Amino acid sequence: MNEKYKKLTELIAEIQDLNHCGSLIGWDQRTFMPPGAAEERGNMQASLAKVTHEKFVSDEIGRLLSDLIKELPGLDPDSEEYRIIKVTARDYDKETRVPGDFVAEFAQVTSLANQAWMEARGKSDFSIFQPHLERIVELRKRYISFFPPADHPYDTLLDIYEPGMKTADVRGIFEALRPQQVELVKAIADRPQVDDSFLHVDYDEKTMLAFSEEVATSFGFDFQRGRQDKSAHPFTQNMGPDDVRLTTRFDPKHPFALLFGTMHETGHGLYEQGVGHTWSRTMLESGASLAIHESQSRMWENLVGRSMPFWEHFYPRAQELFPSQLGKVKLDQFYRAINKVQPSFIRVEADEATYNLHIMLRLELEIAMVEGKVAIKDLPDLWNTKMKEYLGVTPPNDAKGVLQDIHWSGGMLGYFSTYALGNLVSVQLWERFLEYDPELEDQIRKGDFSALLSWLRVKIHQYGRKYEPQELVQRVTKSKIDSAPYVRYLNKKYRAIYGL
Amino acid sequence: MNEKYKKLTELIAEIQDLNHCGSLIGWDQRTFMPPGAAEERGNMQASLAKVTHEKFVSDEIGRLLSDLIKELPGLDPDSEEYRIIKVTARDYDKETRVPGDFVAEFAQVTSLANQAWMEARGKSDFSIFQPHLERIVELRKRYISFFPPADHPYDTLLDIYEPGMKTADVRGIFEALRPQQVELVKAIADRPQVDDSFLHVDYDEKTMLAFSEEVATSFGFDFQRGRQDKSAHPFTQNMGPDDVRLTTRFDPKHPFALLFGTMHETGHGLYEQGVGHTWSRTMLESGASLAIHESQSRMWENLVGRSMPFWEHFYPRAQELFPSQLGKVKLDQFYRAINKVQPSFIRVEADEATYNLHIMLRLELEIAMVEGKVAIKDLPDLWNTKMKEYLGVTPPNDAKGVLQDIHWSGGMLGYFSTYALGNLVSVQLWERFLEYDPELEDQIRKGDFSALLSWLRVKIHQYGRKYEPQELVQRVTKSKIDSAPYVRYLNKKYRAIYGL
Repeated sequence: MNEKYKKLTELIAEIQDLNHCGSLIGWDQRTFMPPGAAEERGNMQASLAKVTHEKFVSDEIGRLLSDLIKELPGLDPDSEEYRIIKVTARDYDKETRVPGDFVAEFAQVTSLANQAWMEARGKSDFSIFQPHLERIVELRKRYISFFPPADHPYDTLLDIYEPGMKTADVRGIFEALRPQQVELVKAIADRPQVDDSFLHVDYDEKTMLAFSEEVATSFGFDFQRGRQDKSAHPFTQNMGPDDVRLTTRFDPKHPFALLFGTMHETGHGLYEQGVGHTWSRTMLESGASLAIHESQSRMWENLVGRSMPFWEHFYPRAQELFPSQLGKVKLDQFYRAINKVQPSFIRVEADEATYNLHIMLRLELEIAMVEGKVAIKDLPDLWNTKMKEYLGVTPPNDAKGVLQDIHWSGGMLGYFSTYALGNLVSVQLWERFLEYDPELEDQIRKGDFSALLSWLRVKIHQYGRKYEPQELVQRVTKSKIDSAPYVRYLNKKYRAIYGL
Repeated sequence: MNEKYKKLTELIAEIQDLNHCGSLIGWDQRTFMPPGAAEERGNMQASLAKVTHEKFVSDEIGRLLSDLIKELPGLDPDSEEYRIIKVTARDYDKETRVPGDFVAEFAQVTSLANQAWMEARGKSDFSIFQPHLERIVELRKRYISFFPPADHPYDTLLDIYEPGMKTADVRGIFEALRPQQVELVKAIADRPQVDDSFLHVDYDEKTMLAFSEEVATSFGFDFQRGRQDKSAHPFTQNMGPDDVRLTTRFDPKHPFALLFGTMHETGHGLYEQGVGHTWSRTMLESGASLAIHESQSRMWENLVGRSMPFWEHFYPRAQELFPSQLGKVKLDQFYRAINKVQPSFIRVEADEATYNLHIMLRLELEIAMVEGKVAIKDLPDLWNTKMKEYLGVTPPNDAKGVLQDIHWSGGMLGYFSTYALGNLVSVQLWERFLEYDPELEDQIRKGDFSALLSWLRVKIHQYGRKYEPQELVQRVTKSKIDSAPYVRYLNKKYRAIYGL
């Protein structure tokens, strides 16, 4: 067994190196690539993806895995070897079930769909995108057919992004959460709105960028093993734990979005920098799932970065950097402004109190698409009806409604839920940490995040993909993913801000 | 044949995509990579190089090539197909002759040698590097043994960098050149030195950088298909003709080195941007050789960038950008200063009149090493003796002598000559262009480089690697590589500057 295990890990290490090459090339495409390079970049990515796929689905790896799987019962289920074999076998199974021809067709269809979506959104004309989305739903159903039947066909899609997550579970969680969030948002809507006009005046981009890196450094992000650049849409990309790259952007209409964007991506980045080197160049080397990742990004962005203790520490610094804009604004005013709740059409601009409602709407539509219970042409109306029901607003056009997100054009059905699940998990972890160390607010008030980061490193980061996401949440919080802590958090915070 | 040719070009296209991935990863390593990422970057490069090599030396490509080579006699030797088969077969032959084990050993030995060289140079202690260089010479002799016997064993090393170039040819060229360059340098040494003190005061880096990009743009570099960044040592890297990246650096002691560095790299970059898309993703997609590449970089840096007509156009702009430094300096003073001749120890800082002498010295030592006619331990003395003979100066220590260049530590014996050959070719091409269009100086005086660039595109750039370097020089200039034009150029320019 030892020889075979050694051989497997050697082969996988090379594959992960190639995956890192792909990550770096993707990062460059979104940061520094000159525009004329787009065509050859597509070739580079396709050829690299092809050879990486071929290496992974090789007969040799298949034979090694089928031999090693037989040895699993004799191993400690918590051991490194056991987990590496298990996760690698799971990934191998997924990669081999889907025929190469299908992958190529899917890539082609989504590439065209993405172009159509951009045009459709530009013209706010859903009919341009409709036939492409129909084709994508068809292909996603075919994808599902490559896998053993699940409790619900949508489970197979969820599993791409959130291993082990079931449709019934997500529905249950969201159904408990929705009425409470809807109620809170309605209550807030009846209260006088906070004034955040001072957030939307001129701020200097370079100063904001420098401030964001000060904050990221104070959180514990290691710029010796990472960097921050600009891109059209913020993202985090990494090539193992020692090369983790954040991006942010500056929008003069929302200058503080740069700072909160950096905090969010820093959350992702801290997670990746914290994955144990034990897992380097194995299939376990990154975060457990999208939801767990999002729990980290949302924690640093919202639970830390939009909290009063954080700004008790950092607000004097912000005033020093932006004296003309903030010099006369009181801390409390600033705090209320960065936490303003206002139902809006666009998910990515949504505040903490409304964000999850955007996600729930998308989940329901996606399930209906996969079940064939909704005709694609009826999506825009259904979208608008649900927006009115959950958020009390009706998008003025499809560009600000059903066409706003890129995900469906890329075939990413099953992805959205992870955003909301991440929010829920972030508060579950937060409450657990407070039991362990009730002094957290005082530490944050001093700009000291080391205890929180250390705990996250020990409880979450170091494990990489060793545990499935729900297993990990269970281990740390002694609970399943649960909406109650999030509801408590929202109510406490926003009832105070809006005087409810 | 058509089917086989089609299959070959498809396979090669994927290999070139992977090579582009390697290029981009190498570029990132030298520009933006965080320091902590070095170890995993090494893994990425090794795994990518391995899979790229495996793909290239595959039996399938071997069979296709051996079938296609049989068809060559029936093809037009100037046709695309003929040249693609021929160059690909030549590259394949080189790649397959050298055993994988040797490549791995060579990589390991040079990796250690590079570390030892850095230490040796830091301490100016040749004995630290000596055993590594001995090992490298041994391995280079073994490398030579994998190839059919040539007229001279050193031919096989030259051929790596300058296909088709023979030791006897280079020797002949250099022997004609050396006495004339030595004589000129001696004559200059007896004349009063020019004053260039105003080049070594404070200049603003950002302004110099912006100026350098203005100049690169005026030369015709397309920033839609390229970019410029900073790195410790300037270089040009490209991923096909549509993604060409220059780097430069700022040394406060030599602020104008940034500008001339950019001009030099722009020369390389213009070449790569000008390679015909016919050759994209084939083995012919880049410059013909290092010497031809250097002919382009040196032409734009020296024949254009250090010429009086160039500065007649750009000097007012330089004075506008740097009024306190250059406002009172006359054009003629400035021109003389940027063309100051001063024998020095360091090749990379050498002026046009002395540069080639540094190269000749290296060539003679390399040939002696390969012939076994010099003991490695005697290199420092031999170096210093030749420096005195050619340049009239004796390095104060080995750091400024035999240890100054990185090349030998990387095993790159055979490389240096291409620098000097490039200088010679640059003037051969220049003279040929003047016959075609005698108005060149007037154009440059107006800041118009389009006729020169168009001619280079037509005569050199578009062909990529279609023609071997000497074949290309012969086609364009109706002459072999020849030192006479360079000698004429040097004498005319520097006798005027130094009043000889």
